[in-house]
Amino acid sequence: MEVKEITNRDDDFAKWYTDVCMKADLVDYSSVKGSMIIRPLGYAIWEEMVHILDQKFKETGHENVQMPMFIPESLLNQEKEHVEGFAPEVAWVTYGGKEKLEERMCVRPTSEVLFCEHFKKIIHSYRDLPLLYNQWCTIVRWEKTTRPFLRSREILWQEGHTMHATEAEARQETLQMLEIYKNFQEEYLAMPVITGKKTNKEKFAGAEETYTIEAMMYDGYALQNGTSHYFGQHFAKAFGIEFVNKDNELATPYQTSWGVTTRMIGGLIMTHSDNNGLVLPPKIAPWKVIIIPIGDVDETLKALENQLKENNITYKVDNANKTPGFKFAEAEVKGYPIRVELGARDLKENKVTLVRRDTLTKMTIDFKNIIPTIQNLMVEMQNDMYNRALERRNSMIYEAHDYAEFCNIAQTKSGFIKVNWCGDEACENKIKADTTLKSRCLIADEEVDGNCVVCGQKALTKVYFGRQY
Amino acid sequence: MEVKEITNRDDDFAKWYTDVCMKADLVDYSSVKGSMIIRPLGYAIWEEMVHILDQKFKETGHENVQMPMFIPESLLNQEKEHVEGFAPEVAWVTYGGKEKLEERMCVRPTSEVLFCEHFKKIIHSYRDLPLLYNQWCTIVRWEKTTRPFLRSREILWQEGHTMHATEAEARQETLQMLEIYKNFQEEYLAMPVITGKKTNKEKFAGAEETYTIEAMMYDGYALQNGTSHYFGQHFAKAFGIEFVNKDNELATPYQTSWGVTTRMIGGLIMTHSDNNGLVLPPKIAPWKVIIIPIGDVDETLKALENQLKENNITYKVDNANKTPGFKFAEAEVKGYPIRVELGARDLKENKVTLVRRDTLTKMTIDFKNIIPTIQNLMVEMQNDMYNRALERRNSMIYEAHDYAEFCNIAQTKSGFIKVNWCGDEACENKIKADTTLKSRCLIADEEVDGNCVVCGQKALTKVYFGRQY
Repeated sequence: MEVKEITNRDDDFAKWYTDVCMKADLVDYSSVKGSMIIRPLGYAIWEEMVHILDQKFKETGHENVQMPMFIPESLLNQEKEHVEGFAPEVAWVTYGGKEKLEERMCVRPTSEVLFCEHFKKIIHSYRDLPLLYNQWCTIVRWEKTTRPFLRSREILWQEGHTMHATEAEARQETLQMLEIYKNFQEEYLAMPVITGKKTNKEKFAGAEETYTIEAMMYDGYALQNGTSHYFGQHFAKAFGIEFVNKDNELATPYQTSWGVTTRMIGGLIMTHSDNNGLVLPPKIAPWKVIIIPIGDVDETLKALENQLKENNITYKVDNANKTPGFKFAEAEVKGYPIRVELGARDLKENKVTLVRRDTLTKMTIDFKNIIPTIQNLMVEMQNDMYNRALERRNSMIYEAHDYAEFCNIAQTKSGFIKVNWCGDEACENKIKADTTLKSRCLIADEEVDGNCVVCGQKALTKVYFGRQY
Repeated sequence: MEVKEITNRDDDFAKWYTDVCMKADLVDYSSVKGSMIIRPLGYAIWEEMVHILDQKFKETGHENVQMPMFIPESLLNQEKEHVEGFAPEVAWVTYGGKEKLEERMCVRPTSEVLFCEHFKKIIHSYRDLPLLYNQWCTIVRWEKTTRPFLRSREILWQEGHTMHATEAEARQETLQMLEIYKNFQEEYLAMPVITGKKTNKEKFAGAEETYTIEAMMYDGYALQNGTSHYFGQHFAKAFGIEFVNKDNELATPYQTSWGVTTRMIGGLIMTHSDNNGLVLPPKIAPWKVIIIPIGDVDETLKALENQLKENNITYKVDNANKTPGFKFAEAEVKGYPIRVELGARDLKENKVTLVRRDTLTKMTIDFKNIIPTIQNLMVEMQNDMYNRALERRNSMIYEAHDYAEFCNIAQTKSGFIKVNWCGDEACENKIKADTTLKSRCLIADEEVDGNCVVCGQKALTKVYFGRQY
């Protein structure tokens, strides 16, 4: 629990990130290589995310289910592109106790094939559609290099899987879920995000279209922070899923899937945190307030606790046998949005000191105003955090008009680069080979007028490029 | 979705059970042998259980965390009794992608060793204690024969893991969690349960003492429906976990673990359900009310929905294009506690018909009284279900005074048999060999005066024996 120094964010961003994860007690390592232990504070943040998103999924008609965690090899093989995308990175179970399995099974890297097998059994008529399922679970992808929350062999996530009678409905679902993710990340995580379609090269193995949520981290790198896929009838045909439509004819349904993961916690940290540790937007912080009693303040403390409870403001009290200075630093490391310094001396004059975590601004107020002040501070802080992140992100979006300019920006700046693109994968590949930048997503809402930044042919679309986590 | 006939419960209890699970759409099978798909209604029941228990855990100071799902073989081997108990039934991961792992890992069958490794890192001082952790996750045990909810290769559960400075505190925690389980199952699941200590033979691999929750199913079989273990310093010593106590001396902490699983859903079914399908106690039913509109009742339906929402009574409306009769049967299969038949004809006289699921009693009441009537019915139904289950269970507890009587009861009756026991495992083994009955738990609160039912030596304790799931 000792608070050691966190590496300066501008000196070594990667080290700073790991330091914050460890010093804030969000995660720990174990002898299980590539996996992380999510500690109480980290898991409490995840629970907040789950709680809010789950409600949004249910409000839009989705039901939770739980599929098996294993996939027999033959089932994984049933959709060609999908297995090619995932087989190289799955964990294989080959023994049950002392017996070798007749067929090996992987731990699910994602569950499309399991859902498809089930859908084939339960979808018969248009009356069974739409089928709107979601599951919260752990998936496994055998990553070589891992980092807490960002890239891990085990990932906590949700995966939505839906089936629809018409293409239009399935496309609408894909975009609806993308919008839910976007709104959640902007409203609750105070993270501005860009949404758009992935290029063919970057789309999900087996999808017809992949839409992505792209956030920009403090260092200008992109974080793909959620995806929503439109499958068309791709999997449905591979699995022979059919239904009798309203005209009494056999038809093939249209499918989507969509997911977000604990990676969002990594995104939160790399967007808002600072050299003192974690900074959490009030709307996602499990505990909005940390109270640090100084001197004998038992009675006032009790009264304050009651007021906070009455107003549904979650809080913790730091009663440890440590100095106030130590506790202030600890409160900063752990990212409580508002620190209440409840001091016996201040209270004699009916005063109390509040500190907001993002700016570390201190204010001494009348104790009787504490609840409305906290409430206002939380709203203000949430807005300020979003606006600061938005401003920073916008200041790191560049536009390149020719390839020399592109390479120059890629070399000298960190951020997203907006370019015209002809749509040819060769040009996308050349950019990656020359600069390591990958396409983030297509830009749908800007008119295209110009030529591809790589080959000079007529451009079909605009695209963001960037380095990524 | 078609409602086929459910096997008569008294003809073939095992078949009846599976029929209810399938017809109520609680589960489905897949190509993943030994695992089940938990469908929306089954999962919604689990979510209710999780929600209530999680709150109780947090109220008693526990924090949620998430450990890795894999355990390297060498880590599992670190506690001898534990590995002997679990190694024969774990799933082994041997490949990551195309690469053979240097050390194979099992999917966690339970997580004591993972917690211990972590505890060793984070426990240093008495100030770090007690450490009260819980995790909600999936575990894997490679069972040969499986049944939905009761015995499955994959199990959703929670596992609490706590560390304490003193033996007394750890023992108190073990009993506190047992009590929380008992109260939850009696109050919410309307299942009377017996709690007590397991014999040495039946205790958890590595535990000093295992306390169990034993419920009796409709057929007289026992369901072990939760356990709470006191480990003493067993694991702590094997893992070298030490802390500096208040006297500034190195000491070894005392440990507990405790868990309940989706098995509780199986218990619910085998306690309360009937030949028409699922019967859910109102306090655990995800939707308390099913509304079946008959004729044009749109306006009243809207008003009723608003009233239910205002009163926090969850409900569903069956708007399918089917006959009322079909919908009544469907509502019974799915176990909604209260069915509201909202008929246009009844409404002309301001009447509405309610049916409670457990007794299928029908009552026609004034529409204006519908909310208080539903509220009262739910309380009544919850109590009645508990009392019926209690009466039934008590009527199936027998007492055997000598071994001939024991064998006779074991042959002719189903239920629990109470006996005097000398404490010798040989006598326990003889009972199992002769009758297949296993000890359920020791009876703590009855005076012992007599001789062992098997060997005739002086008895040390009373014990329940029974057949089990």
